[in-house]
Amino acid sequence: MTPTEVVDRLLPARLQARASSEQFAPSNIALCKYWGKRERSLNLPVNASLSVSLDHLGSHTRLTPIDAKQDEIRFNGRPLPLHAAFSQRVTAFIDLFRRQQPLYFRVETRNTIPTAAGLASSASGFAALTLALNDALGLELEPRLLSVLARLGSGSACRSLFDGFVEWRMGRRADGLDSHAVALEARWPGLCVGLVKVDTAQKAVDSRAGMQRTLETAHLYQSWPLQAAADLEKLHRAIAQQDFALLGQTAEQNALSMHATMIASWPPLLYWQPQSVAMMQTVWALRGQGVPLYFTMDAGPNLKLLFERPQRDAVLRHFPELEIVEPFATG
Amino acid sequence: MTPTEVVDRLLPARLQARASSEQFAPSNIALCKYWGKRERSLNLPVNASLSVSLDHLGSHTRLTPIDAKQDEIRFNGRPLPLHAAFSQRVTAFIDLFRRQQPLYFRVETRNTIPTAAGLASSASGFAALTLALNDALGLELEPRLLSVLARLGSGSACRSLFDGFVEWRMGRRADGLDSHAVALEARWPGLCVGLVKVDTAQKAVDSRAGMQRTLETAHLYQSWPLQAAADLEKLHRAIAQQDFALLGQTAEQNALSMHATMIASWPPLLYWQPQSVAMMQTVWALRGQGVPLYFTMDAGPNLKLLFERPQRDAVLRHFPELEIVEPFATG
Repeated sequence: MTPTEVVDRLLPARLQARASSEQFAPSNIALCKYWGKRERSLNLPVNASLSVSLDHLGSHTRLTPIDAKQDEIRFNGRPLPLHAAFSQRVTAFIDLFRRQQPLYFRVETRNTIPTAAGLASSASGFAALTLALNDALGLELEPRLLSVLARLGSGSACRSLFDGFVEWRMGRRADGLDSHAVALEARWPGLCVGLVKVDTAQKAVDSRAGMQRTLETAHLYQSWPLQAAADLEKLHRAIAQQDFALLGQTAEQNALSMHATMIASWPPLLYWQPQSVAMMQTVWALRGQGVPLYFTMDAGPNLKLLFERPQRDAVLRHFPELEIVEPFATG
Repeated sequence: MTPTEVVDRLLPARLQARASSEQFAPSNIALCKYWGKRERSLNLPVNASLSVSLDHLGSHTRLTPIDAKQDEIRFNGRPLPLHAAFSQRVTAFIDLFRRQQPLYFRVETRNTIPTAAGLASSASGFAALTLALNDALGLELEPRLLSVLARLGSGSACRSLFDGFVEWRMGRRADGLDSHAVALEARWPGLCVGLVKVDTAQKAVDSRAGMQRTLETAHLYQSWPLQAAADLEKLHRAIAQQDFALLGQTAEQNALSMHATMIASWPPLLYWQPQSVAMMQTVWALRGQGVPLYFTMDAGPNLKLLFERPQRDAVLRHFPELEIVEPFATG
């Protein structure tokens, strides 16, 4: 099944641009990672995942209907040529909605994510774009279907439609209509995510390609779904019982297991820098001294620290440039 | 079955110390790693492994019968107390042979392995000790049985009884009499192993404990036997066809997959130092420039480089302190 066929099931055939719209969607940090696709064109995952959204860090996207024959793309205040990789992904996503109709937009995206922190902006970007399309085209789709649509742009975007803890249910259907995120009710005041800056260079292998290489070449990947399923269950338990050690352990082992599948690929896929290892050693040394501090990592060299508010000062002493987000501080 | 019961099947009940004996056994570098035990007391492995022996680098062990009530242990020229960990392992191994009989020895072990290179000395040490016991006690056991006995001291010691390429057949029997090494006939003149010094500190977790933690806590370990079986077959093909790229790739992916299972354990087991990552990046950069250079690693931070003689100068330019061994240079 193609993305267009899925969209045809969800949207009316005729659309009209009603108004301009500006929407925000948060970045999210997965505590149980999305790693591997069972179906590539629809971004259907091999395993369910669970994330926490980063409150005010994310993407603002403004859509303005324009009388033109193509879209106009602006990113962080600057016009981008339509042949740029980012523009191509954005217009391809709008094409899914527009399906040959003459509906063009100025798309202005502004990220509040610190670019050096290694946070994926495609998740929040496609989530905000989905919300803005829903609004500008007057679609009034329910959150579950918005999540299905955002997934077509970027898998983890389906989680960025919600605040707090979010689970992406993997689903079983071929059309993916049951593969979408849901917000969990539980909150965790005092939970902190610390963003560490390791490296700002462009990744040599993007996570989409990395996922594919791992799936095709790493024998160890065959056990990844087992790890992810066990971790998902532990995370639900940790959240229900507000058991921080269980949350931290599970998230750290899950992230390291994901990296392990990459390290076991051919050619080897190691996103770590020497400095990443030094920072892991610092985290482990602090934990050895009794500080409940854990980390997670995505497909890059940066660590994302997990701790609770009482540890804030102790953590800042060892990571003075840390940017700290409290996902449940507001709202 | 206990080690003593195995020895009872192989050795005559009454033994006599006939002479002193000095024997040498080489260190070995596994290209397909021994990682995980299906039976702990006999060191029976989960998977078959394949190594190359390091010619003159290894252990010299001299046994002298003494008229005493306990053994005397000397290591690299110095007397060691009997309660030292090394002495305990040595005397426990001799106990297996002596089985209550009043046969005591002065055991003098001298390693020619550069201590900073991260080469396990237990493999060559127990292999040399087995050879010396065979000789001093006049046992005249065939190599296959010597390999079974050496395995009881340290798993990978069963491979250090032979030169060149060596396969440790995993076997199926409960008594382990079919789990022993055999020498391969193939030789590979020009093959070089480069020993890199990363860190001389004692490991926080020895490989015996690391193996056990991985087996018990890493879901990804479940796929390790698949990786190892595929790699063993590829290594046989690489050796038969003298296909160096296949040999190097397979050895590197195998080592990284083993480390991946440790990284996926809980608590995480990362033997790498920041410098290990920097050196891997150097190897990959050189390979990107067309230099056929690969690495393997054991349960430690050190890299062991694999290349052929024509690359010697290019490799030395980037690793000036490299100690190079040519396993097939002599003999």
